Amino acid sequence: MTNTIRAEVITIGDEILFGQITDTNTAWLGTELTNIGIRVVRKSSVGDQANVILDVLHEAHQRADVIILTGGLGPTKDDITKKTLCTYFGVGMVRNEEALALVTSFFVKRGREMTDLNRGQADLPANAVYMQNDWGTAPGMWFEHEGRVYVSLPGVPFEMKHLMTNRILPKLRGHFNRPVIKHKMIRTVGIGESFLAERIEAWEDALPDPIKLAYLPSFGGVKLRLTTTGNDEAILDQQLAEQVEKVLPLIEKNVFGFDNDELETVVGRLLSEKGLTLSIAESCTGGYVSSQITKIPGSSAYFWGSVVSYSNIVKVNQLGVTPETLDQFGAVSEETVRQMAEGVRKALGTNVGIATSGIAGPDGGTPDKPVGTIWIACSTDERTVARLLKLGQYRDQNIQLTSTYVLNMLREELLTL
Amino acid sequence: MTNTIRAEVITIGDEILFGQITDTNTAWLGTELTNIGIRVVRKSSVGDQANVILDVLHEAHQRADVIILTGGLGPTKDDITKKTLCTYFGVGMVRNEEALALVTSFFVKRGREMTDLNRGQADLPANAVYMQNDWGTAPGMWFEHEGRVYVSLPGVPFEMKHLMTNRILPKLRGHFNRPVIKHKMIRTVGIGESFLAERIEAWEDALPDPIKLAYLPSFGGVKLRLTTTGNDEAILDQQLAEQVEKVLPLIEKNVFGFDNDELETVVGRLLSEKGLTLSIAESCTGGYVSSQITKIPGSSAYFWGSVVSYSNIVKVNQLGVTPETLDQFGAVSEETVRQMAEGVRKALGTNVGIATSGIAGPDGGTPDKPVGTIWIACSTDERTVARLLKLGQYRDQNIQLTSTYVLNMLREELLTL
Repeated sequence: MTNTIRAEVITIGDEILFGQITDTNTAWLGTELTNIGIRVVRKSSVGDQANVILDVLHEAHQRADVIILTGGLGPTKDDITKKTLCTYFGVGMVRNEEALALVTSFFVKRGREMTDLNRGQADLPANAVYMQNDWGTAPGMWFEHEGRVYVSLPGVPFEMKHLMTNRILPKLRGHFNRPVIKHKMIRTVGIGESFLAERIEAWEDALPDPIKLAYLPSFGGVKLRLTTTGNDEAILDQQLAEQVEKVLPLIEKNVFGFDNDELETVVGRLLSEKGLTLSIAESCTGGYVSSQITKIPGSSAYFWGSVVSYSNIVKVNQLGVTPETLDQFGAVSEETVRQMAEGVRKALGTNVGIATSGIAGPDGGTPDKPVGTIWIACSTDERTVARLLKLGQYRDQNIQLTSTYVLNMLREELLTL
Repeated sequence: MTNTIRAEVITIGDEILFGQITDTNTAWLGTELTNIGIRVVRKSSVGDQANVILDVLHEAHQRADVIILTGGLGPTKDDITKKTLCTYFGVGMVRNEEALALVTSFFVKRGREMTDLNRGQADLPANAVYMQNDWGTAPGMWFEHEGRVYVSLPGVPFEMKHLMTNRILPKLRGHFNRPVIKHKMIRTVGIGESFLAERIEAWEDALPDPIKLAYLPSFGGVKLRLTTTGNDEAILDQQLAEQVEKVLPLIEKNVFGFDNDELETVVGRLLSEKGLTLSIAESCTGGYVSSQITKIPGSSAYFWGSVVSYSNIVKVNQLGVTPETLDQFGAVSEETVRQMAEGVRKALGTNVGIATSGIAGPDGGTPDKPVGTIWIACSTDERTVARLLKLGQYRDQNIQLTSTYVLNMLREELLTL
């Protein structure tokens, strides 16, 4: 692996260290940098103190060719990134006219009054190349210093992503002559990490040298990531494709997709291909399954709607679950979840209906039906299938896992049609 | 700030650097450590390579009193944390009988076969104090080395959280004699960071010495965080309460809660207090608002259900929106969203109904109604109110912001009842 371009991502802000926000920026940056063949070797988060920011800048200088900083660029007094960069580079602060025009137009457009704090956002370290932020008043900045590239970006995710996508990534591509890193991800569901590992052990041991395998467990599934590095993208793709072809027969039943596939995109594709429409009846998942389906752009082509039936009255009136069924078997039962899946399909007039009913927790469990007892169902023209899940104690996890399992049940049923 | 206990959190795994998973562990750890008066001074993420793990361990030793590692403890070949800790501490690996018994019972309970890989999970560095993981087969470990505490935990969030909560945090509390750090968070909605800053400038400038203020912007709102440090918790609480009392009159209209309050917990509290029930009609938000409401344990006390009406047929049949309204004004209109809020309230028989209808994007915009055009409404016994939002281009953001605004509209209406 010659000539690897190494990157370090530094996030600045006490709120990250103290846990008051979850950092989603660095995962996104990791993906984007990896995609253009830059290897992230370290991520660091430090607080809003000049001395620790200086420390991490000096350390990163030793470790990386590209140092990307996010955060600390807001208009308020606790944001000190720019001042600290002036100290680090040994330069002064200069008002940038281009940045000032942008900030001014931002306020004019919105009909808002501009404050001195806002005007101060146009002050940049003297060695900065100004990178226009079309979505906010904090500037993007590019620096070259002792053979390294430094990039400073706002911490607000959509501003950061816009600047990276439109300004920084193209400039990095031009700046470096980098090797290619290629990944291939195999997405599995319904098999644990160690069982997967045993099943593919012989294949794994025989992987040729530049190819690395990683197991990435997540809710209800394990991602297998193959990575390789070289110069010729087409050859690398070919090498990865060969390995996928070898391993697939060993785990075919558990593979639902590749790379960025999610269960909700895979079922969306299957529904579109087959010209089928979907409706959802949700009790314990409370709208989560629907929100997973509808976060996919274009989902309105196959998804007609849902009924979230938290109360039994809604189960009866909107979904046609019979009061007798609720009396005899309870809301958390095979009989009820089947009637929910069939009922939502009928009420909303779709080809397929799926349903969830269970005890998400932390309260509501009984000795017979402890927290984590959850029924899922899928109803099509052909048949209705139902399954009992015995999950754990944690509400969030139970909701997410139920969503995974009911979407996988939908996928399996769609494959039979 | 004398005698501060400093912590560094190190996450291990290529998948974090490459952006294939989003690290939510360190935010949680930051909150928990802060709450017991341990200050997180650095977070670092490194890949699955022994030499860089060794580097960051040596660096962390210089910076912190407590070093917490997560990840790299799985049964598969890319997990190398334990071996690397042996090198770092200069010790060998020893099979731990207590850990082996736990791993064995884990497999016996589930009726699964145990593999050699699984048995290997009971091998620990010789100087490890074994910390039992009740939720998985990867061990927790506690080390004391040259005056520092090292803790190694699995990366799977619920296993890590369980181990921290039940084993590590109590042990850390006993081990250190720490100062108290106290935070008070004021949650605002509907006012930008710089406007907030100008409005409270005089108060901010007059903050007494140990108290620090930070602005934490997030979707649709800004959190104001007050922090102070000392020895007497009651005195610190009192100092923070005094400052909150001073600033509140300046921003009262925009404050929806404190500390861990979210809009969904605040509206849940208001609904409970007033004995009112809620239903939701969602078009563009596709179930997201319902999932926010139902992630709160106990929400079934006031939330009866939702209709997600992606298709117009569902708007007509389930919500009673008239075909004439849809024809004349379109699905994204004040008239439609009012009928949705009133319709869901009537259909599900609740006291209050809220509704969303808009163009989340990226497709579906027109010159008249571009992407980001979104109507929200709230209907009570007293009246129905509606509001037009003009949001941006990004689907995820539009869905999240719409949820924030409609929940805030609900909060404001509930306060008038």
